[in-house]
Amino acid sequence: MTLTKPTRDLYAAYVDRMQKIADIKYSAAVLEWDQETYLPPKGATARSRQLASLSEIAHEWLTAPGLGDLLQELHGRGDLEEDQHRNIELSLEDYNKGKKFSPAFIRRLSETSSRSFHSWLRARAANSFLLFKDDLQEMVTLKKEEAELAGYEQHPYNALLDNFEKDCTTSLLDQVFSTVRAPLKELLDRIADRPGVDDSFLRGNFPRGLQWDFGLDVIRQLGFDFEAGRQDLSEHPFTTSFNARDVRITTRIDENNFSHMTWSCIHETGHALYEQGLPPEYYGLPLGEFTSLGIHESQSRLWENNVGRSLAWWKPVYPRLQAIFPKRLEAVTVEQFYKAINKVTPSLIRTEADEVSYHFHIMIRYELEKQLIEASLSVADIPGCWKENYAAWLGVDVPDDKNGCLQDVHWSHGSFGYFPTYSLGSFYAAQFFASAVYQDVSIGQALRGGNTAPLLAWLRTHIHRHGRRYPSEQLCQIATGKSLDIRFFLDYLLDKYVIIYDL
Amino acid sequence: MTLTKPTRDLYAAYVDRMQKIADIKYSAAVLEWDQETYLPPKGATARSRQLASLSEIAHEWLTAPGLGDLLQELHGRGDLEEDQHRNIELSLEDYNKGKKFSPAFIRRLSETSSRSFHSWLRARAANSFLLFKDDLQEMVTLKKEEAELAGYEQHPYNALLDNFEKDCTTSLLDQVFSTVRAPLKELLDRIADRPGVDDSFLRGNFPRGLQWDFGLDVIRQLGFDFEAGRQDLSEHPFTTSFNARDVRITTRIDENNFSHMTWSCIHETGHALYEQGLPPEYYGLPLGEFTSLGIHESQSRLWENNVGRSLAWWKPVYPRLQAIFPKRLEAVTVEQFYKAINKVTPSLIRTEADEVSYHFHIMIRYELEKQLIEASLSVADIPGCWKENYAAWLGVDVPDDKNGCLQDVHWSHGSFGYFPTYSLGSFYAAQFFASAVYQDVSIGQALRGGNTAPLLAWLRTHIHRHGRRYPSEQLCQIATGKSLDIRFFLDYLLDKYVIIYDL
Repeated sequence: MTLTKPTRDLYAAYVDRMQKIADIKYSAAVLEWDQETYLPPKGATARSRQLASLSEIAHEWLTAPGLGDLLQELHGRGDLEEDQHRNIELSLEDYNKGKKFSPAFIRRLSETSSRSFHSWLRARAANSFLLFKDDLQEMVTLKKEEAELAGYEQHPYNALLDNFEKDCTTSLLDQVFSTVRAPLKELLDRIADRPGVDDSFLRGNFPRGLQWDFGLDVIRQLGFDFEAGRQDLSEHPFTTSFNARDVRITTRIDENNFSHMTWSCIHETGHALYEQGLPPEYYGLPLGEFTSLGIHESQSRLWENNVGRSLAWWKPVYPRLQAIFPKRLEAVTVEQFYKAINKVTPSLIRTEADEVSYHFHIMIRYELEKQLIEASLSVADIPGCWKENYAAWLGVDVPDDKNGCLQDVHWSHGSFGYFPTYSLGSFYAAQFFASAVYQDVSIGQALRGGNTAPLLAWLRTHIHRHGRRYPSEQLCQIATGKSLDIRFFLDYLLDKYVIIYDL
Repeated sequence: MTLTKPTRDLYAAYVDRMQKIADIKYSAAVLEWDQETYLPPKGATARSRQLASLSEIAHEWLTAPGLGDLLQELHGRGDLEEDQHRNIELSLEDYNKGKKFSPAFIRRLSETSSRSFHSWLRARAANSFLLFKDDLQEMVTLKKEEAELAGYEQHPYNALLDNFEKDCTTSLLDQVFSTVRAPLKELLDRIADRPGVDDSFLRGNFPRGLQWDFGLDVIRQLGFDFEAGRQDLSEHPFTTSFNARDVRITTRIDENNFSHMTWSCIHETGHALYEQGLPPEYYGLPLGEFTSLGIHESQSRLWENNVGRSLAWWKPVYPRLQAIFPKRLEAVTVEQFYKAINKVTPSLIRTEADEVSYHFHIMIRYELEKQLIEASLSVADIPGCWKENYAAWLGVDVPDDKNGCLQDVHWSHGSFGYFPTYSLGSFYAAQFFASAVYQDVSIGQALRGGNTAPLLAWLRTHIHRHGRRYPSEQLCQIATGKSLDIRFFLDYLLDKYVIIYDL
């Protein structure tokens, strides 16, 4: 590629290269999807090496000097269209970030991650943090090194946050979390003083096939395009995408607990609607990608909670559910059902937490991560620190490591800076939802009739179609006219729980 | 890679390279499998380009000059172990063959194949060969060019046969087919003079779920390892492998016709047992691959016909089938059932043909292909020639192109030289089966008790474990002590039909 060619030709070469890289990345995603859904057990060994080879090629191509020269040259050209310029700007950013890490460092990271994932599995099975400690220590050391290589302002943890949520910083998170901490704690305490909510009817015998059919029905109602995606079963529900026209979600079914399947379906559908709403013409280019994990999570949580745990939406949907499980639900009113699915009970396990206590799980992890990276906490002290915090904030006694600091896979993969995006997702979700129903009053009306199409249309227009054009904060400004304002989330929770618990 | 390094290091570099190429090829196979089983319709466009990118990488790596130098150097080293030497020899053969074709020629072939596949689809839908003629003409021209580039002795068609069946030639096929033609025709004629066989009970209502369960049961009984593979549904049944520990088969279910599912399951299981029996330690190397399509087909046909259409095997299995479909089968004896599943009826469609008339479908195609490639037949004359041959050999009137020369996909893909391997498969199957039961009498005994494990053990030892070590003819010699001898096949058919039709 001669860099003296016309801009049009150079840009075409850039698109071609990026789309071929996307082909490899999405091929890997297909192999990973198959690994979680259909892979026979003995196929696992070869699958690992097939995935490793694909990611080696993708990384090599993404950091090739030729691509850097091309991006640099195009970035200096004055005759790019606006979208083209934005694509080049973002790709150059990715390229410059990528080349800060040598292939040797990437390999160390991947090897350590693989090793510490297996020691995490062993430690969890043996219920002993000690078996995980050394590999976690090495991972923390590597992540500190990564922060130094990447560079950062103010706090090394900012470099790690940047992997998941661009421009997110400890200052922003400290401010956000300090705003929610006290009111959430007060809400938890007030709820604890009230009589409990009965949710016993959510457990019992809900036949597998009926749950599956109801799940598909809900997903379809919410606007998931089954011509451009599908649902399968896996141990842990997830969403993956091979392009905006092929988005796969998974769920799990527990015959004794109707909730698992239902809200994992709705949650993953939220992720999937975002992916299906990304502009397909930008296949392989930044403007065709999601903008951040926080925004991705805002979409899953908006559908899961703001819609999927609302009385408004369930009123028209609930009779269908009653008709499917008459024995269990015909004597339960929609109001009783609504209270049950919103029951608040501080507990040990993050993934099973309600909407109020959930954020304490995140804040505890966030503080620990920050301290580990700034070296004010040593790895050996994690279990003790975990126990103290769970007692202080959630009033629960951590009986062992399995139900404590070994419950999440994230650290074994080196995903430090990931947890905060879960809370950010809920906060953005509340603000997006409030803005949507405020900006277009027909959205709420339709929702009360079980029709979510106007809400989806708002999200398509204000969030999805922008792809990676704007970072989260700017996207939030453009979509809602305001920076992230935590009061939307607090208002949403108070409105809900004042009624449910008669506070 | 410095070529002055010790043999051990050079061989390790060769293995590493070949296994990475295998990673890419098998990744493509996963994407293709998904395409046939689970891909949502709108995902097809991106999937095509993802597959194209993977095959581009594989081809580039397979023909890289560095690989050629490495293979050349290793081939000259005297200190390779026997297996290592054989791997190098076969890889060098592949390399030398691959580099005869320029990337531009490969691209033309792939583009023409893609275009002619679509015009074949259109032509078939419109039932008009004319719509396919021009693209087929171009494909024939390209295949002649391919034969010239590849080089050949005696007949250009030999170069094309070599793609599927190494060392197979028109002389061999002419001799084989001239041996079977007359006796098969005589058998067809004698059968036609006898009263027909009643197979009406094979049609009617066979519920989908029950068929699926019976199919899985049969597959498991035959020795397919479900820890190292799985079965799914697809429009056209096929087998694919991502390594010997992950082999996927598919089937289709017709509620009105029990036969489709059953014998496609058994056929694909035959292919899969071969793949599962290849030595996994040779992942990515020639000794870990199957040796030819003819031998692959011998495995599927041996299980489908020599086992799956035998009275010996059905006697113990049939009561289970009766218990699943009592309404349809309780009044049908296993002898009546056996006759029905072996009914001979010359017909228009190859894939639905019985074991006798099947080979006329192949011989007709073989003669046409040979004439097309040697230019003694023009593409425009195919439909007329097809009609004449079907009338002469099978006594059937070809009413239109859809039921005639447009029925198979092969030519649109440029797969000239492929069809003969189907017949070779049946011929080898008969010889392997006869040798197995002759060499180890316990095989037949076990079979009559429904136990196919001793037969599978024989195939593992005499066929599967050799991988690509021997070409078909040599493998046949080693396994059976003889060259391919068509009399095994003729004896097998006569033994069967003399009884069924009381000839």
